Amino acid sequence: MQFNKVTDQIVEELKAIVGQANVLYDEEKMEMYSRDEVSDKLWEKMPEVVVKPETAEQVSQIVKLANRELIPIVPRGAGTGLAAGAVPLNGGIVVSMEKMNKILELDTENLFMVVQPGVTTGEVQKTAKANGLLYAGDPCSADSSFIGGNVATNAGGNKAVKYGVTSRHIYGLEIVMPNGDIVTFGGKNVKDVTGYDIIHLMVGSEGTLGIVTKIWLKLMPLPKYVADLLIPFADMQTAIKVVPKIMTAGIIPTCLEFMDSLSIKSAEMYLNKKLPYSDAGAYIICEIDGTSETQVQDDYETIGKLCLENGALEVFVADNMSTQERIWKARKCYAEAIRMISPVYCMEDIVVPVSNIPKCLEAIERIAKKYNCKIPSCGHAGDGNIHATVMREGRSEEEWHELKDNVLGELYEEVYALGGNLSGEHGIGAKRAEAMNKHMTDAQLSVLRAIKKALDPNGIMNPGKVLVLE
Amino acid sequence: MQFNKVTDQIVEELKAIVGQANVLYDEEKMEMYSRDEVSDKLWEKMPEVVVKPETAEQVSQIVKLANRELIPIVPRGAGTGLAAGAVPLNGGIVVSMEKMNKILELDTENLFMVVQPGVTTGEVQKTAKANGLLYAGDPCSADSSFIGGNVATNAGGNKAVKYGVTSRHIYGLEIVMPNGDIVTFGGKNVKDVTGYDIIHLMVGSEGTLGIVTKIWLKLMPLPKYVADLLIPFADMQTAIKVVPKIMTAGIIPTCLEFMDSLSIKSAEMYLNKKLPYSDAGAYIICEIDGTSETQVQDDYETIGKLCLENGALEVFVADNMSTQERIWKARKCYAEAIRMISPVYCMEDIVVPVSNIPKCLEAIERIAKKYNCKIPSCGHAGDGNIHATVMREGRSEEEWHELKDNVLGELYEEVYALGGNLSGEHGIGAKRAEAMNKHMTDAQLSVLRAIKKALDPNGIMNPGKVLVLE
Repeated sequence: MQFNKVTDQIVEELKAIVGQANVLYDEEKMEMYSRDEVSDKLWEKMPEVVVKPETAEQVSQIVKLANRELIPIVPRGAGTGLAAGAVPLNGGIVVSMEKMNKILELDTENLFMVVQPGVTTGEVQKTAKANGLLYAGDPCSADSSFIGGNVATNAGGNKAVKYGVTSRHIYGLEIVMPNGDIVTFGGKNVKDVTGYDIIHLMVGSEGTLGIVTKIWLKLMPLPKYVADLLIPFADMQTAIKVVPKIMTAGIIPTCLEFMDSLSIKSAEMYLNKKLPYSDAGAYIICEIDGTSETQVQDDYETIGKLCLENGALEVFVADNMSTQERIWKARKCYAEAIRMISPVYCMEDIVVPVSNIPKCLEAIERIAKKYNCKIPSCGHAGDGNIHATVMREGRSEEEWHELKDNVLGELYEEVYALGGNLSGEHGIGAKRAEAMNKHMTDAQLSVLRAIKKALDPNGIMNPGKVLVLE
Repeated sequence: MQFNKVTDQIVEELKAIVGQANVLYDEEKMEMYSRDEVSDKLWEKMPEVVVKPETAEQVSQIVKLANRELIPIVPRGAGTGLAAGAVPLNGGIVVSMEKMNKILELDTENLFMVVQPGVTTGEVQKTAKANGLLYAGDPCSADSSFIGGNVATNAGGNKAVKYGVTSRHIYGLEIVMPNGDIVTFGGKNVKDVTGYDIIHLMVGSEGTLGIVTKIWLKLMPLPKYVADLLIPFADMQTAIKVVPKIMTAGIIPTCLEFMDSLSIKSAEMYLNKKLPYSDAGAYIICEIDGTSETQVQDDYETIGKLCLENGALEVFVADNMSTQERIWKARKCYAEAIRMISPVYCMEDIVVPVSNIPKCLEAIERIAKKYNCKIPSCGHAGDGNIHATVMREGRSEEEWHELKDNVLGELYEEVYALGGNLSGEHGIGAKRAEAMNKHMTDAQLSVLRAIKKALDPNGIMNPGKVLVLE
């Protein structure tokens, strides 16, 4: 695919579309658009121009212009991605959705919120909660990530065990297609089989098949009772072996997380606050919610007992906001805590069938030992989704790339052997595109490529993400 | 699209692929494959040949042959469809999945069942239940429908309010693509964003994008306590106005159904058994389940109270199997009961936002009065999914077609005006293809057509279903 450069003439046309104030071409101002949360120079690139549309109509005009001129379009949310999905690695126009940041409607009768893509996930959550409702999407980055980015990556998060990933909460999308058409699929119907399911094809397509400009989010009744359990274990294997037991005990926990000892220690250091049993080999964190207090109590007692019978050192119950927040702070600061110890790192997002988590963690330990590096792990145990993070620490650039290649190469082989896959919730982006394209069969890839080619024949939508450039 | 006829030579080739015993070309034997549950001659057509493959490899060879010879392929489950989706209206080869009817694996550790498409939904449900697990898909036709047909139509059913439609339970598919490639997407990972979501594009595509040959179904813990409420009301409008109130009361019911007085009377006549309050204007049927007895009791008491405050005549609680079965028998016999009164009828599957159900039912009543016909309605109130059924009764063929055209034309306009859509769970098939293609925008259709064209360039996969022939 051969793309053209953004010329002065094109910049003028962009100004005419979105207004002068919404076009950036000064390198200093564009610097923050040159990367996401992947902490590696390899995945940074200065945009040729950044535009901030305010309407779907403007997005459509930008896309039509890019199509005419064969210039890449890179849609961008809050830049909190972890796969270099919003970085303009092939140049072109970064389309930042930051100005399309309005909640358009809160429909408490049908339990829907209609929003623009630039609203933060946290604002969606807070607005729902203030109205006695739950938006169940809950990535760790909720406070800063945009809901549009959650849609683009099909973000997972902590509550996915019970409530599912982002796609579960999306019932309608307005999309600017790669040809510039503005088209709506779905809306406030909670069941709809009228035509193909384009909504779920778009969710998780990382801006490679179109730009989402409006989202219909399903809300739920806010559970009346919530309890969190913090359960320390002497070692990781004992802890993680309890996960399939919890998942088959007849209860669906809202969240079921784990942290290994390196993650616990890093969190303690970062928060500068003593954590309970921080010498433990691992934590399991489990949340239960429901409409009845006795049900929540019964459920967490069942799970607590199961853990104690299976090697837990203790079961701490947090049933009020302040103790709950303390537990979740330790879990949610994972990325920041790692960064404090090693500013450069490579956070993975592998996923395996739940019963294979113990084997997967064994493999991670073995690989860390083999290459003499630190790979703290934490993640969504109930979903089999493990954020293993390779740390650079003091290594030279060259040593680091060699280490990463070796570790990831070996790790991915293990994951595939366990029936797993590359990404549970962060997405493929540019970071994992080569690995995905290597591991998929030709038949699988040809389905993906056929759809991409059919909807985006010029290949201008976020090129090099998900599928490698041909 | 110009298709060829099935020649004797092709029949011989088919015999070589699946074996002589698995090829039917005798009209008497093929008769049952010439229709589904749509009770109208308009939607019947004799196949040129019926084949019953036993492996994905055989399906692949059949598809390759059909591609080479430009012959339509019509995949077929149990024939319980309600949209003429499995009828060979453009001729060709009916591929019946009846012999691929094995449960391949029950994985109680990861809560998965892996099945072939020809297993009945009822067998999936029973096998799960016998192991203390729940398969939450539950169309009224569960006892006879194939799970593959549920996937093809993204079947809804009674438990969709709480547990979602079929697509929610599907985590992996083996598919024979229109080019004959056998390709697997997904498996036992409960989160996976590695590449586009092809699984959900396939679910509900009604055999127009490929043939599903293996399915990974997610199971859940079986709820320990279940209670059903049968709630009669004096009239339909009072009954249906309570639905949005229940849906926003902080509880998620498992099922929330309604029946109007015509449906109640028909069920009573069909079952030949007195139903409680059968002179009522409408029933609401509500199911609550959970892990705690007190929670289930609290929840149904809250809902019962809400109904009594809003005009319910009575609230009957069924908390044991036999009374529960009695309630559901009345609801589930809807189609059979209607058929007894009028052997020819047209069952619709419209869906509207929950808050618009009262207006939609008003419109149905108005249209029935205007055209002096009977349109009993029942359906999934909690999902806004209404099975309004136009009855032919004593009308001549000509009168019937005129009536149907008038009623459906007016009904669909009303539904679209209410933000609704044509089909909530039965699918488009051939029956609604023209209406769907008329109501969709060009931009929407061009997305659907582009995908169809990309994956099935010869248009051999179930032609004329979902999209009209071009």
